[in-house]
Amino acid sequence: MRNLPRIIYRFKEYLLMSGIRVGIAGVTGYGGQELLRLAARHPGLEVTAAMASSAREGERALPALTGLWAGDVEPLSAADLARSTDAVFLALPEAASAELVPELAARGTRVFDLSGAFRLRSAAARARWYPRTPDLDLPVLYGLTERCRTALAGARVVTCPGCYPTAALLALQPLADAGAIAGDVVIDAKSGISGAGKTPSEKTHFSERHGSVAAYGVLAHRHSAEIEQELDREVTFVPHLVPLDRGILATIYARVRPGTGEDEVAGLLEQAYGDAPLVRLRHAALPDIKQVAYTNFCDIGWKLDAGSGRLVLVSCLDNLGKGAAGQAIQNLNVAFGLEEQAGLL
Amino acid sequence: MRNLPRIIYRFKEYLLMSGIRVGIAGVTGYGGQELLRLAARHPGLEVTAAMASSAREGERALPALTGLWAGDVEPLSAADLARSTDAVFLALPEAASAELVPELAARGTRVFDLSGAFRLRSAAARARWYPRTPDLDLPVLYGLTERCRTALAGARVVTCPGCYPTAALLALQPLADAGAIAGDVVIDAKSGISGAGKTPSEKTHFSERHGSVAAYGVLAHRHSAEIEQELDREVTFVPHLVPLDRGILATIYARVRPGTGEDEVAGLLEQAYGDAPLVRLRHAALPDIKQVAYTNFCDIGWKLDAGSGRLVLVSCLDNLGKGAAGQAIQNLNVAFGLEEQAGLL
Amino acid sequence: MRNLPRIIYRFKEYLLMSGIRVGIAGVTGYGGQELLRLAARHPGLEVTAAMASSAREGERALPALTGLWAGDVEPLSAADLARSTDAVFLALPEAASAELVPELAARGTRVFDLSGAFRLRSAAARARWYPRTPDLDLPVLYGLTERCRTALAGARVVTCPGCYPTAALLALQPLADAGAIAGDVVIDAKSGISGAGKTPSEKTHFSERHGSVAAYGVLAHRHSAEIEQELDREVTFVPHLVPLDRGILATIYARVRPGTGEDEVAGLLEQAYGDAPLVRLRHAALPDIKQVAYTNFCDIGWKLDAGSGRLVLVSCLDNLGKGAAGQAIQNLNVAFGLEEQAGLL
Amino acid sequence: MRNLPRIIYRFKEYLLMSGIRVGIAGVTGYGGQELLRLAARHPGLEVTAAMASSAREGERALPALTGLWAGDVEPLSAADLARSTDAVFLALPEAASAELVPELAARGTRVFDLSGAFRLRSAAARARWYPRTPDLDLPVLYGLTERCRTALAGARVVTCPGCYPTAALLALQPLADAGAIAGDVVIDAKSGISGAGKTPSEKTHFSERHGSVAAYGVLAHRHSAEIEQELDREVTFVPHLVPLDRGILATIYARVRPGTGEDEVAGLLEQAYGDAPLVRLRHAALPDIKQVAYTNFCDIGWKLDAGSGRLVLVSCLDNLGKGAAGQAIQNLNVAFGLEEQAGLL
Repeated sequence: MRNLPRIIYRFKEYLLMSGIRVGIAGVTGYGGQELLRLAARHPGLEVTAAMASSAREGERALPALTGLWAGDVEPLSAADLARSTDAVFLALPEAASAELVPELAARGTRVFDLSGAFRLRSAAARARWYPRTPDLDLPVLYGLTERCRTALAGARVVTCPGCYPTAALLALQPLADAGAIAGDVVIDAKSGISGAGKTPSEKTHFSERHGSVAAYGVLAHRHSAEIEQELDREVTFVPHLVPLDRGILATIYARVRPGTGEDEVAGLLEQAYGDAPLVRLRHAALPDIKQVAYTNFCDIGWKLDAGSGRLVLVSCLDNLGKGAAGQAIQNLNVAFGLEEQAGLL
Repeated sequence: MRNLPRIIYRFKEYLLMSGIRVGIAGVTGYGGQELLRLAARHPGLEVTAAMASSAREGERALPALTGLWAGDVEPLSAADLARSTDAVFLALPEAASAELVPELAARGTRVFDLSGAFRLRSAAARARWYPRTPDLDLPVLYGLTERCRTALAGARVVTCPGCYPTAALLALQPLADAGAIAGDVVIDAKSGISGAGKTPSEKTHFSERHGSVAAYGVLAHRHSAEIEQELDREVTFVPHLVPLDRGILATIYARVRPGTGEDEVAGLLEQAYGDAPLVRLRHAALPDIKQVAYTNFCDIGWKLDAGSGRLVLVSCLDNLGKGAAGQAIQNLNVAFGLEEQAGLL
Repeated sequence: MRNLPRIIYRFKEYLLMSGIRVGIAGVTGYGGQELLRLAARHPGLEVTAAMASSAREGERALPALTGLWAGDVEPLSAADLARSTDAVFLALPEAASAELVPELAARGTRVFDLSGAFRLRSAAARARWYPRTPDLDLPVLYGLTERCRTALAGARVVTCPGCYPTAALLALQPLADAGAIAGDVVIDAKSGISGAGKTPSEKTHFSERHGSVAAYGVLAHRHSAEIEQELDREVTFVPHLVPLDRGILATIYARVRPGTGEDEVAGLLEQAYGDAPLVRLRHAALPDIKQVAYTNFCDIGWKLDAGSGRLVLVSCLDNLGKGAAGQAIQNLNVAFGLEEQAGLL
Repeated sequence: MRNLPRIIYRFKEYLLMSGIRVGIAGVTGYGGQELLRLAARHPGLEVTAAMASSAREGERALPALTGLWAGDVEPLSAADLARSTDAVFLALPEAASAELVPELAARGTRVFDLSGAFRLRSAAARARWYPRTPDLDLPVLYGLTERCRTALAGARVVTCPGCYPTAALLALQPLADAGAIAGDVVIDAKSGISGAGKTPSEKTHFSERHGSVAAYGVLAHRHSAEIEQELDREVTFVPHLVPLDRGILATIYARVRPGTGEDEVAGLLEQAYGDAPLVRLRHAALPDIKQVAYTNFCDIGWKLDAGSGRLVLVSCLDNLGKGAAGQAIQNLNVAFGLEEQAGLL
């Protein structure tokens, strides 16, 4: 019996060759590298294509992945992606996704798109925030995993939620759906700098951000539209950059419907996430980015002032994990019938 | 003419010996060291007493101040403080201030207290947040400099505002006083770790805070009481620790009274701070902690969504500068008829 | 075929129940928590005991591990440890290890000790640096995995190397063994703060370390003795604290024996680590802590000035990974015949 | 008498109009902004020209300096610089300095150049590291202030030392000059990221540097040539980037000449810096970047192992202060007969 673990290692190698074949487009960015890292060690996946963000960019080495993944980075090609894979993750700029998603869908590949290109359903909102996005014949599933498990099985195109909306919606939606939220909703989010991507700029220059906190996109961030679409109500959303690499913490201010008590708030969240392997309810022990960085967890805590009905929810996650690459894999896991948390712990 | 600068240096030394004699109690903490650093290079002050936070703690070296200040740190003594100074800064724990302020006031020393002991006027609020504070016979001035310049001249006891209230009130008060604010007010503040003081704890342990953001004191922070007292309205205030050393940024959410436009908001703030040398109005160019760290400035910016009336104010400052030591010196400057920004640029 | 991954998950659960039973003592510290995190997701291990660092400390919650590990933290007990496990990791203070190792060894449990208590073989050196350590009847294996794979199979007590020695020795030893190193050896190491442990102190206070670099233990650090023992030559070793959480980078200065060229240096290192799954040779592309943090890799790069024979080696690793918990598990993997990198990628 | 401080403020304003007229070229970079910040509050200087780094770049706002300096940033013009100033600071790329210094010198303006263009005296070394630099008819003074006070009075062109050489030379030179240093000298330097300038790049991207330490320019950094020129001996110099904004710490490894004791080492350094207002000798209390950041101090500490003669010197400073802008002003102070530390405390 004690020798079984040795057997399983060899067995695993055999199985890996028979895993679900996945392709990743955009592996040189932060989201793409995280996808590759997670997929390479995932026991049920086989990475059969890793492509740069364009054909022009050509091949690139990924030194951080030495010893974890031994393949080559190829130039972007929709035909090659479709041919060699069962499912594809797109970690590309919106414009590239806008072009590639229809093409891959037409070829029958299941697509998990990490860009925002297909997140907004309203044509007007899309024209404002994602003008390059075409209309799709196929239905697109908004892939907040905990909300769409059943639908994932049949989904051909899954648009993975933004990092800020994932944090905000996981905390708010169970309460909003039950009608427990009243009055204005304010979402004040603090994000690590990796959320701004890998392209150097003054905004992401080390000396500008070290020792710095600043708001940006105030009253004009496209994630507002995404949150409002899913919640079906107006919110005030302000993101901030804070001097750390990975992680988002959203502090959410609302009032509960008069008469709503602590038990009801806790009950609604427990009902929503009692079985969720990747959401951790912290109750009054408010969460900390530190405990979710480099994980796929979303931690949620809250305080209710019963007298005034003021509710403060705190929700946090790793913007590259549950906020991007991790949630994309979580969606694939559910879509293909694997364990939801496979490769994510 | 070109030789005049050389003359002024010698002249300065002469003048320094005739400057206002100040004492600082609590020089080993972060606030106290900042006071000493600022006072030592202030052209109008002479530091005649630098004391530890208690008699027991005795003498201590301050290596960071080598070359800037050459005196000795003495054990705390009210009698010695009163005898050798015209004015005293107290950077002590509340309990120590609660005891020392009456004693110094009785001896005729002008006191600038940086603790919270005397900030709350309501006996009920004081009993909850500062139970050690006695009643004082003397009037206590709440020393938000930009709001109390005239009163400072005659003040004997000045209680310097907390770091969070300073940031929040400077942005909100001109608007609230004019009746321009409607509805709920949410103040989401992000603070560097030096605000938690110099005593090591798990909360301030480097490895716990690096890469971390966390809310604390949610719906139960005594600075709420201070802000509400000065604004004379309820607010929801939530502070957060962010991984940097010095600085606070407060993001303030409110609605303006219907009909209030961008011009009126800007006009009220310009009227309040047009002449203020240490408040910088940034309008739509939102401020950044980086630009106020190691300064005595409070920078304020804002965005108004005219249609909905949603207003977001962003206010930031250095918690050890304008939020503590710097504002205390600014108060003394005004109180003694020096230039408001003397020693603070 | 495509259904096999689903099969393996269930199979894995069955196997886990039959995995190697391990105990971890000291799970509330940083090293202990990392051990628990790694062991909990290791496909060949079953954590059957997780104990605090003493019987007095009693039970403790480990919120960061919610969802990853569902057991209880028990008070420390040698008898319980020995009874319920095949192997034990000790992440305890030296004094506790000094007492516990002999007791566990006597009960037949295989021990992997992460403390320094048993690292030094010379009685004189031990008396200076680890005065509490008793003499052991059993042989103790110095567990730098890449150097002791064969010996690990039969080892009963493995003393895991310090974080600094691991980084320094992996780079230096293949060259020193071949006689390629001449003259003085200087090791300048930069460490993240987690290496200083979890107990708050002024030295590890956030505001003291943020924006700070400082040397410590200069010419008087016990890791010098450890490095010198293994290299069998004198070195000058100076560690520094740098403002990050996890990671060590050691810059090593030496001269090569006259006539030694780039090819020989590279050849010796490739010979040593050609098959090593957890050492990555970077050659002239010098390594960066960023690429090894949160991994079990040791990355090594170098530059040789052929004319002068000056050699600079740069070696880096995660002090909690390959420098502590990860290497301990790597040792266990080899000792029990599992894949060396099992659970570590 | 107590009114004198008020008098001096008005008097100061009068004197400022008669201060030394200085120009700063390159005010939009980090070094240039620091120069402007320091010069603006310097009691003996009047900033009469603040120029961008080229004529093309045109005018730029400097929001961080609002309230500290009220002038305009002009496009670069040698003629305007020469006309309106008594002395000029150049914080420009080497190529620009290489062109501008001769032109300004010809017009009789005293020049303090912060670039490396004129630091190397050997034509061969200059051809390698600064190929754009022409030969100058005028003598150029290497401006390590503590070493060249007398020569500064008559200097027309002062080349300000690099940040790394300043830290290394201040610690080493008094010992090397006395013949107290034997054997190899290794200089391992750790620098904050602001030393890499303001231009965004992958190397200075926040997410690449946060949590990172990496060596660069190994055995091939032009500051090696500068240090070797001044010391007149070979050194091994390796710089590293560490995740902080401002500050350099150099750890220097050498052996002392046999027989040299602790007293002699201390004596040589005290003799060199006994009167220096901006060098602080810390002896065995090793310095920390934290204590010199945002100051103009260079702190130096050391440990000597008397038996083996191994000496470790630790020297640190703010790379934008004593390592750049501060030292340039210190040089001007001495050159024009002001107090050496004027405007620098």
